[in-house]
Amino acid sequence: MTPPDVTQLRRTLHAHPEVGFTEIGTAATVIEALRAAGCTVRYGAPVCDVTGLTGLPDEPELAAAADRALARGIDPTLVTALSGGTTGVVASVTGNLPGPVVALRFDLDALPVTESTDPAHAPAAGGFASTRPGYMHACGHDGHVAVGVALGQRLAADRDFPGEVRLLFQPAEEGVRGARALAAAGCCDDVDVLVAMHLGLGLPTGTVAAAAVGMMATVKLRVVFTGRPAHAALAPDQGRNALLGAAAATLALHGLPPVPGVVTRLNVGRLVAGTAANVVPARAELDIEVRADTEPALAALTERVATVLAGAAAMHDLTVETTETGRATVARHDPTVTAAVTAAAQRTSGVTTCRPEATMTASDDATVLMAAVQDHGGRAGYLLVGAGNPAPHHHSRFDIDERALPLAVDLLDHLVRDGNLAAE
Amino acid sequence: MTPPDVTQLRRTLHAHPEVGFTEIGTAATVIEALRAAGCTVRYGAPVCDVTGLTGLPDEPELAAAADRALARGIDPTLVTALSGGTTGVVASVTGNLPGPVVALRFDLDALPVTESTDPAHAPAAGGFASTRPGYMHACGHDGHVAVGVALGQRLAADRDFPGEVRLLFQPAEEGVRGARALAAAGCCDDVDVLVAMHLGLGLPTGTVAAAAVGMMATVKLRVVFTGRPAHAALAPDQGRNALLGAAAATLALHGLPPVPGVVTRLNVGRLVAGTAANVVPARAELDIEVRADTEPALAALTERVATVLAGAAAMHDLTVETTETGRATVARHDPTVTAAVTAAAQRTSGVTTCRPEATMTASDDATVLMAAVQDHGGRAGYLLVGAGNPAPHHHSRFDIDERALPLAVDLLDHLVRDGNLAAE
Amino acid sequence: MTPPDVTQLRRTLHAHPEVGFTEIGTAATVIEALRAAGCTVRYGAPVCDVTGLTGLPDEPELAAAADRALARGIDPTLVTALSGGTTGVVASVTGNLPGPVVALRFDLDALPVTESTDPAHAPAAGGFASTRPGYMHACGHDGHVAVGVALGQRLAADRDFPGEVRLLFQPAEEGVRGARALAAAGCCDDVDVLVAMHLGLGLPTGTVAAAAVGMMATVKLRVVFTGRPAHAALAPDQGRNALLGAAAATLALHGLPPVPGVVTRLNVGRLVAGTAANVVPARAELDIEVRADTEPALAALTERVATVLAGAAAMHDLTVETTETGRATVARHDPTVTAAVTAAAQRTSGVTTCRPEATMTASDDATVLMAAVQDHGGRAGYLLVGAGNPAPHHHSRFDIDERALPLAVDLLDHLVRDGNLAAE
Amino acid sequence: MTPPDVTQLRRTLHAHPEVGFTEIGTAATVIEALRAAGCTVRYGAPVCDVTGLTGLPDEPELAAAADRALARGIDPTLVTALSGGTTGVVASVTGNLPGPVVALRFDLDALPVTESTDPAHAPAAGGFASTRPGYMHACGHDGHVAVGVALGQRLAADRDFPGEVRLLFQPAEEGVRGARALAAAGCCDDVDVLVAMHLGLGLPTGTVAAAAVGMMATVKLRVVFTGRPAHAALAPDQGRNALLGAAAATLALHGLPPVPGVVTRLNVGRLVAGTAANVVPARAELDIEVRADTEPALAALTERVATVLAGAAAMHDLTVETTETGRATVARHDPTVTAAVTAAAQRTSGVTTCRPEATMTASDDATVLMAAVQDHGGRAGYLLVGAGNPAPHHHSRFDIDERALPLAVDLLDHLVRDGNLAAE
Repeated sequence: MTPPDVTQLRRTLHAHPEVGFTEIGTAATVIEALRAAGCTVRYGAPVCDVTGLTGLPDEPELAAAADRALARGIDPTLVTALSGGTTGVVASVTGNLPGPVVALRFDLDALPVTESTDPAHAPAAGGFASTRPGYMHACGHDGHVAVGVALGQRLAADRDFPGEVRLLFQPAEEGVRGARALAAAGCCDDVDVLVAMHLGLGLPTGTVAAAAVGMMATVKLRVVFTGRPAHAALAPDQGRNALLGAAAATLALHGLPPVPGVVTRLNVGRLVAGTAANVVPARAELDIEVRADTEPALAALTERVATVLAGAAAMHDLTVETTETGRATVARHDPTVTAAVTAAAQRTSGVTTCRPEATMTASDDATVLMAAVQDHGGRAGYLLVGAGNPAPHHHSRFDIDERALPLAVDLLDHLVRDGNLAAE
Repeated sequence: MTPPDVTQLRRTLHAHPEVGFTEIGTAATVIEALRAAGCTVRYGAPVCDVTGLTGLPDEPELAAAADRALARGIDPTLVTALSGGTTGVVASVTGNLPGPVVALRFDLDALPVTESTDPAHAPAAGGFASTRPGYMHACGHDGHVAVGVALGQRLAADRDFPGEVRLLFQPAEEGVRGARALAAAGCCDDVDVLVAMHLGLGLPTGTVAAAAVGMMATVKLRVVFTGRPAHAALAPDQGRNALLGAAAATLALHGLPPVPGVVTRLNVGRLVAGTAANVVPARAELDIEVRADTEPALAALTERVATVLAGAAAMHDLTVETTETGRATVARHDPTVTAAVTAAAQRTSGVTTCRPEATMTASDDATVLMAAVQDHGGRAGYLLVGAGNPAPHHHSRFDIDERALPLAVDLLDHLVRDGNLAAE
Repeated sequence: MTPPDVTQLRRTLHAHPEVGFTEIGTAATVIEALRAAGCTVRYGAPVCDVTGLTGLPDEPELAAAADRALARGIDPTLVTALSGGTTGVVASVTGNLPGPVVALRFDLDALPVTESTDPAHAPAAGGFASTRPGYMHACGHDGHVAVGVALGQRLAADRDFPGEVRLLFQPAEEGVRGARALAAAGCCDDVDVLVAMHLGLGLPTGTVAAAAVGMMATVKLRVVFTGRPAHAALAPDQGRNALLGAAAATLALHGLPPVPGVVTRLNVGRLVAGTAANVVPARAELDIEVRADTEPALAALTERVATVLAGAAAMHDLTVETTETGRATVARHDPTVTAAVTAAAQRTSGVTTCRPEATMTASDDATVLMAAVQDHGGRAGYLLVGAGNPAPHHHSRFDIDERALPLAVDLLDHLVRDGNLAAE
Repeated sequence: MTPPDVTQLRRTLHAHPEVGFTEIGTAATVIEALRAAGCTVRYGAPVCDVTGLTGLPDEPELAAAADRALARGIDPTLVTALSGGTTGVVASVTGNLPGPVVALRFDLDALPVTESTDPAHAPAAGGFASTRPGYMHACGHDGHVAVGVALGQRLAADRDFPGEVRLLFQPAEEGVRGARALAAAGCCDDVDVLVAMHLGLGLPTGTVAAAAVGMMATVKLRVVFTGRPAHAALAPDQGRNALLGAAAATLALHGLPPVPGVVTRLNVGRLVAGTAANVVPARAELDIEVRADTEPALAALTERVATVLAGAAAMHDLTVETTETGRATVARHDPTVTAAVTAAAQRTSGVTTCRPEATMTASDDATVLMAAVQDHGGRAGYLLVGAGNPAPHHHSRFDIDERALPLAVDLLDHLVRDGNLAAE
C-alpha cells in the first residue's frame, strides 16, 4: 500500500481530534502506518507508563474514548492496548551505518476548542475540519504526527543513515502531562540525542529557528475547594461557599505581582463550581497553570499560589486540595544540536530563512524528555518550523500552512542523515 | 392489579430520580397507575405547554433522558409523548356530588445532588437509594408524587365527594420552571380552588401547617459572559477573561446590601468557565437566583443584579447575556382554604398539631398556579405536612419520615371530601 | 441668667459639632448651664472612666480637640478636666419626695459628615449649620443634649418630683464606645430605672414610641493588615500587599450570608491603605461593624468575620490585628417603664400618637447602660420621639423638626414627675 | 563662608525631608549655597511653571509646607517665592570656553516613608535621620541635591570649561510630576545636552553605568469613585458603596494580564475610602500608577485601566473621575552622551567599573526633560552611580554609601569639563 501523503494524513488526523491520553485513533493510525512501512513499533503500557500520573482524565472519560475508537472501527486489539491513557507509540528504524540513538518527539493530542466553520478557515473550506464538536487540533499536533509518520516511512524505505532513529509519539502534550509517561517507561534511557519540533509559533512558512528560546518551566494544578452545601434560601448561613473561595482565589492569583527580570505567567483556565441556582456551592474545581522562565522563579511563584489557595480556603471556611497534573521544565539547547539543525535547514529546499533562535514564550513537556536525556549525558534541542498561522495557537481559526509539512519532513530527514548529530 | 402502597411507590420513585423536564419515567409511572385506577389522565404537550420556556435543559440532555427512559423499559409511546420537556400529567376524578373544581399540585422532579451512602441514611440502609449517581430526590418530591397517586387511586375507588378533583403533576419545580407550562396549557383556567402541599420544611411528623407563610418571590437567571480566548502564555493580553468577570460579578452580587424590613436572598449557585489551564477563559456561565418576600423588593434587587452584571462585563471588556429561566411569586392564602385545611387536619389520624401557619423562607412555583387561579376569582392555599427530616432540604442525607405519607393522603382525602373548600 | 431656650441651645450645639470623646465644648456648655441652674454636676474622669477603652481617638486628635476648645474660649479648667476622652457629664437633681434614682441618658457626639449647604436645608437657611467643615450633627444628638439641659433646668427649678433624677450626658455614642466609660465609673451602680431617648428614626413629629424594638447588638472592629512595602516597579514581588488583602476581605465580608430569622448587618465603613502610587501598600486599616438582633447571632457572625480576616491575611502573606473599639447589646424593655412612658405621652401636649413600639434597626450603647442597670435588678427602657426628619440619619441633609424639642422636654418631665417609674 | 562638604550637606538634607512641590527648605538651601558660590540662580515660578499641573498637593498641604519652612527659619522672601508648588531652582555657570548649554538634572523631593530607627541604619546611628516622622529621603535625592550643589560650587570656583552648565533642581520627581513644570517654564528650550543622574539602583559603589536602560514610561492617576452614603444598619440598601467599587477595581487592575515582550507594571498604591464604621462609604480615592517600557504598551494598558475603572463604577452604581497627576516617558540615550559619560568615568578616581548600561526597571520624569531636549534636536542621557544600597529604594532602611557622593561630583565635573558632550 502506498503510504498516504503527509498532507492527506494531516487532514485525516485533523478531522478526528482526540485530547490528551485519549488519542487511541491517532495512535492506531501511527502504529498501522509505521508497522506497514517496516518500522519496529511498540506502543501502550510498555512504552507509556502512566502509573501514578495525576493528570489522566477520569475513568468514564477514558472508557468513552475507547468506545469512540471502537465505534470508528479501530482494531479492537489496539484499542485495548491503548486504553487507560497508554496511547504512546515508539517507532524505531535502524540505519545501515553505525551511529547514535537519535530520538525525535511528536505529540499526538488535540484541544477542547470548537473549530471555526467560517469558509475562510481552510479546514472548513477543504472539508477536513473537526468532526467532533468542541474538539480541534488547534496547536498543529496533527501536522507533527503526520510529519513523524512520513519521516518514519521515508527512513524505513531508505536506511542509509547512521545509528537508530527513534520516533516518540507522545500523548497529552497539552497540560504537559504525557512526556513523563514515556520517560517513566525508559524510552529515553539510551538516547544520545533528542530533538523536538514544533510547527508554527508565528514564524512564516520557509523560516526555521534552530532553537526555541524562552520556553517556560511550568506546573499545572488541579485545585478542589470543598465547603458545605445548603439550601440557598432556607439556610444560606449553614453553607460554606466553595465558589466564593474559588472566586477570591482566582482574583488573588491573577493579582500576584510580576518578578523583575523574569517572565512569568499564571492562569486560572477553568473553574467549575456548584450544581444549581438554589444550592450554596459546596465544591469548586480549578485548573491552574503557573509558568516562569527559570526554575527558581517557578518554585517561588508556585509557593505563592499555594499560599493564596490556603488563605482563600481559610477565608471561606473550606478545605482545599491541590494535585499537580502536569509539569515541564526550561529548555537547554546543546550547541551541537543547534548547529546540526542549522546545517540541515540550509540544505532543505523551501527554507528561506534559518534563524539561530526564536522566542517561544510557552511550555512543552518535550523539555522533560530533553532533561532526561541531558541528565545522563546526552544532548538535546528544540526547533521550530514556520507554518504561517492565520490565527494564534489554541484559537478556533488556528491553522497551519500545509507547505510546511513536506518541508519539515525533509528537514528532519536531512538532520538524521547528515551525521552532524553524532559529532560531539 | 392492586395499587402499590404509597410507601413502596415513594421508594421506587426515590430510586429513580429525574431532574426537571426529564421526569419521563416518573410521569409514566403516574400515568399508568392512575389510568389503571380509573382516573381520566392527560399528559404531555396538551397539558404541559413548554413553548417559549427558557429554562428547559438543552436538546442533548432531553434526548438522553428519553434514551434512559427507553432503556429502563418505559412504554415507547409514553416516552414519545413526554419527551422534549412535556412531562406534565393531569389526572381527574369527578365525584358523585356537585361541587367545585379542586386542583391539587404535586411536583415530579429530583435534584442534581449525590445521595449519601451512609448506612445511617434510611434510603441507603433500606436499599432504595438513588440508582443514578449524582442525582437524588433531596426535596421530598418523590413523596409528593406517591401521595398524589395514592390519593387519586382512593378517590377513583370511592367517588363520594363533591365536584372534580384534578391532580396536577408538574415538572421542574426546582428552578421554579415547570408550573408555567401547566398554566400555559390552561390547566388552571376552570379551577375554583387550588391547593399545594409540601412535605418536610423542618416540621416534625404529626404536625401540619395550614399555610406556608413567608414564601419568597424569585427569579432564576442564566447568565453568560463572553470574552475572547487566547493562549495563556503566548498572548494573555489578547484574551478577554470571562472568568475574571464572572468572579468579580459573583463577589459583587453576594455583597449586595440587605433591605430593611424585607427578606431577600441572592445566590450564584453555579459557575462554569473556561476549558483548559492554558487558555484564557472566553466563556463563563452562571446560574443565579434572586428572592424577596415582596414583589417590589424582588424587582429592585433584580435591577441591581442586572447593574452588577453589566458593570462586571464592562470591567473586563466582555459581553453578557441574561436569560430568565424560572420565576415564582409570593403566596396569598385564602382564609377559607386555610380553614378547610385546618378542619381536615383535625380529623386526620396521626396529626398531633395543626398550626395555622409556618414560615417557609423558600420559593415554589406552585405560587404561579395559585396566582393564576386567584387572578380569575378562584381561591388558593399552600400547606405543609411535617416529615421529620434528619437533614435539610437539598442535602445529601435529606430524607422524609415515611409515616407522613399515608397521613398526607388521609389529610388531602378529608380536604376534598369534607366539602369545606366549596364554601365561600 | 435666663436659660437659653431649648431650640436656641440646640442650634448653638448644631453649629459646633464634636465627634466622640472630643465633645469638650459641648460638655462645657452642659456643665455651665446645669451648674447655673442649680444641679449637682460632676464631669470628667470621675464619671467617665476611659481607662482601657480601645475606641478613643489617637493622642494628636485628642490634643487638637483641646486646642480647638481653648481657641473657642472654653474655660481652660473645664478643658483640662474634659481632655483625653473624659467628656462625660452627670447632673443630678433630687426631688422633694422620696423615690427611686431615675437616670436619663443623652449622647453628646456628632459625626464626620459634611453638612449640606442647600438653602432647602433648615440649618443652612437658619444660619446655624455646622461651622466645622466635614463635621455635622447628623443624628440629632444636638437635640438630645438640648432636651437634657432644658429638662435639668426645669427640674432644678421645680423639685416637686420623687427621688433623684440623674442626667447622663455620654460621649461617643457613634461607634457605641462611650457608654462603657460611664458604666465603668459606676454611674449606673445605684440607678433604679434608666431611660434612654432618641429623636427621629423616621417617626413623624407628634408620634412617640414607648419602646424601640429590634435594636441590634453590635461590635465595632478596627482591623490592621500589615505586609511589606516595596518599590512597585523595581521589586513588586518583594512586597506583601496589604491593600489586596484588605480588598479581598472587604468583598468577602460583604458576601457573608444572611441568617434566616435574624436581622444582621455588616459594614466595612472605612479603609485606608498605602501611601503613594509607586509603593506596594504595606498597611491597611479598616473600620468594620457587625450587628445582629440577637447576641448569639452576633457572636456567630463575629466569628465568621474573624475567619475571613485571618484567611485574607494568609492569602496575601500578611499579619492582621483586630481591636474591638465599640460594643452595644440588644435592648430589653421593662413593661413598667414602657407603661410609664405611655402614660406620660398621653399627658404630653403635642403628642398625637403614642405607639407601644417602633422598630429601630440600629444600635445604641445606651443598651450597655440598660443592661448594667438590669443586671443589678433595676429596670430600663428606650423610647423614641418623632421629629419628622427630611433625610435619613447620618445624611448630609439630616435635620430634626424643632417642635419635637419642647415636646420631648415635656414628655420626660411628665415621666419623672408622674411617679409611674417608681411602681414595680 | 566655606561651602559645606557634600557629605555634610547630604546629611542636613536627609534630616529634613520634604515631599514633592513642598521642598521649600531644600530649595532655599540650594539657592543660598549656589548664590553664595557665585552661580546665577533663578527659582520659583519663572523657572517652575505649575499652572495646570494636576499632581500638586492640595492648598492646605501647600500652606502647611510654607508654615513649616517659616518655622524652620527659612528666609520669608524665599518661602513666598517657593510656595504654591514652585520649588524649582535653576543655577547656571558659564565657562571660559565656548561650548554648548549642558543641563544636569537633580531632583529635590523625599517620600512619605517612615525612616528606620534601627541603630544598624546609618542615618539613625549617625544622628542625621529624618526629623519629620513619616517622611524620609528613601530614594537618594538628598544625595542628588548635595552632588548638584557641590558641583555648582566647584564649577563656579573654576570656570575652565566650555559653554554653560545649567543645574536643574526639580521638584516632585516622585509621582513623575515636577519635570513638566521646568519644561513648561522653558528651562530646556535652549539646552544642547541634558544629562540626568541617579545614585544607587542596586549598583555597588565604584560602579558607574553610562546609560540606564529599560526605564519605563508611566502615568500616575488619581481616581475618585463617588456613591451615596447611608446609615449602614437603618438603610444599607439606600447607599451606593464606593469602597466596594474601589476594592473590585483594585483586584481587577492587579489582575490585568502581562504583555509578552513588554515589561509592564501596575500598582494601586493608595486607597482611602469611607469615614466611619456605621456609614456606607460614599467616596473612595485611589492613587494608581501604570508603567510600560514602550509608549504604545503604556497607552494600551492605560486604556484597559480606564475600562476597568468605568466598569467597576457601573457595577456598583457609582460615578468615577480620573485625573492624570504625573507622567514620564521612556529614555532614549544618545550614543555621544553615553560615550562622554564613559570617558569621564574612566578618568574618575574611585570608579572601578564603568558599564555601558544597566537596567533600571523604574521611571523618572527626567525623561520628560530628555525628550524635550531631543525633540528640538538636542541630545540626552541618563547615568547611574552605584551607591551600595543596604536596602531597596523606597524602603525604610534605604541608604546610600556616602563615598559615592564625591565620586559623583568628580564624574560630573569631568563630564562637563572634558568637552566630549560638545562633539556630535
